[in-house]
Amino acid sequence: MKIDVFFTPLGSREGDLAGRGVVVIDVLRATTTIVAAIAHGAKAVIPAATAEEAVRMTANLERDGFLLAGERRAVRIEGFALGNSPLEMTPEAVLGRTVFLATTNGTPALVAAQGGEPVLVGAAVNFSALVERTRAAFGTSGDLAIVCAGRERQFALEDAYAAGRLVKAVKRGRRRADLNDAARVALGLTDDFADWETALGASAAARQLIDLDFADDVAFCATQDRFDVVPTYADRRVT
Amino acid sequence: MKIDVFFTPLGSREGDLAGRGVVVIDVLRATTTIVAAIAHGAKAVIPAATAEEAVRMTANLERDGFLLAGERRAVRIEGFALGNSPLEMTPEAVLGRTVFLATTNGTPALVAAQGGEPVLVGAAVNFSALVERTRAAFGTSGDLAIVCAGRERQFALEDAYAAGRLVKAVKRGRRRADLNDAARVALGLTDDFADWETALGASAAARQLIDLDFADDVAFCATQDRFDVVPTYADRRVT
Repeated sequence: MKIDVFFTPLGSREGDLAGRGVVVIDVLRATTTIVAAIAHGAKAVIPAATAEEAVRMTANLERDGFLLAGERRAVRIEGFALGNSPLEMTPEAVLGRTVFLATTNGTPALVAAQGGEPVLVGAAVNFSALVERTRAAFGTSGDLAIVCAGRERQFALEDAYAAGRLVKAVKRGRRRADLNDAARVALGLTDDFADWETALGASAAARQLIDLDFADDVAFCATQDRFDVVPTYADRRVT
Repeated sequence: MKIDVFFTPLGSREGDLAGRGVVVIDVLRATTTIVAAIAHGAKAVIPAATAEEAVRMTANLERDGFLLAGERRAVRIEGFALGNSPLEMTPEAVLGRTVFLATTNGTPALVAAQGGEPVLVGAAVNFSALVERTRAAFGTSGDLAIVCAGRERQFALEDAYAAGRLVKAVKRGRRRADLNDAARVALGLTDDFADWETALGASAAARQLIDLDFADDVAFCATQDRFDVVPTYADRRVT
């Protein structure tokens, strides 16, 4: 089997991911937020590359059916109902509604992953379910691309660690796996940190979030297996 | 001091590197080739983003004064005098001449680093000189960006390892260094490999080069301190 990790979505060209199994990861916080929203009954999450795009997409919709959510510089976008916090995705807020989500790193990564088949949404909070689904979907001979959202167009430790955990889990018990350089380095990171909490805690993204009073978000995002859903992204909708 | 590593040049935006000290690294092979050319008496190396650009830049020059060099898919560009092999940059070939060099990863990385002050060209073959120059230039309070060329717009192990070696050497003896996530991970790689040879040997780029009969190039690129020059890039010229 072949596993490629991409530390940011930037390097992939049109078609690089077409027809491949893709997992998109933005642990802090977009994919965690999406998993929480879907687990709590959101009808769908629609990733938007920008706040403007999210607003445009909702222009002709009934007010009751949707929510605008998202952040710029980690803080809720003005005029949006919700930020990019998984803690805000309560059943009360999202049940039966479509969430239009615009974030700096995670939603552009999802948009860039269009063409993957399937495109799965991964995080620590749904990790075991993700592993099971990924192993089932890609089998021994599979071809898997793991796309890290990264941070401000750059490498992000927490996503690389998550990618490494996934590489390790997917190749377990398989004799041969063809890994690209990034997958090898991500795999190595799993030995450098004891658990999700220490890995996330070492990241620049966590430091920024804690400075902005989002320490509860970081703790939430670092807790493995809160949920057992694996959202999929197809036709511009996560369900 | 602050040290940021960029695993590819893609993520940096206009101005990100302006006024910062920058080291550009493409161990396999462009920056090794540039160091060899300058050490062997080339008047200058002019990096071109594409083969076409290299040809265009030389259109009105005297034939005797310059050489066209470069690769596409690791192989010499048709019609060019030299490939991207450091072994070709002999004194006989390059002394007193200007080398126009077009490569897939390294020369675009240099072009992207324009605006850095200074922009230094680093590789294993000039590593100790590079460390000395970098420590002298950026001092305790300095601000250093290390730009890895990467490979086909993606993370490349050999460049990340070189970046890690440089981070380690530059921060040695300094109490505090503010590292971005990529710099931390690069630093960790220095514990994962015994030396340049094993690090380069583990990379996908080396496997490709060896398949194409460039094993001698890989061995050359993995030998530390063949040269004591640190070329600098300014006004579109490496000297």
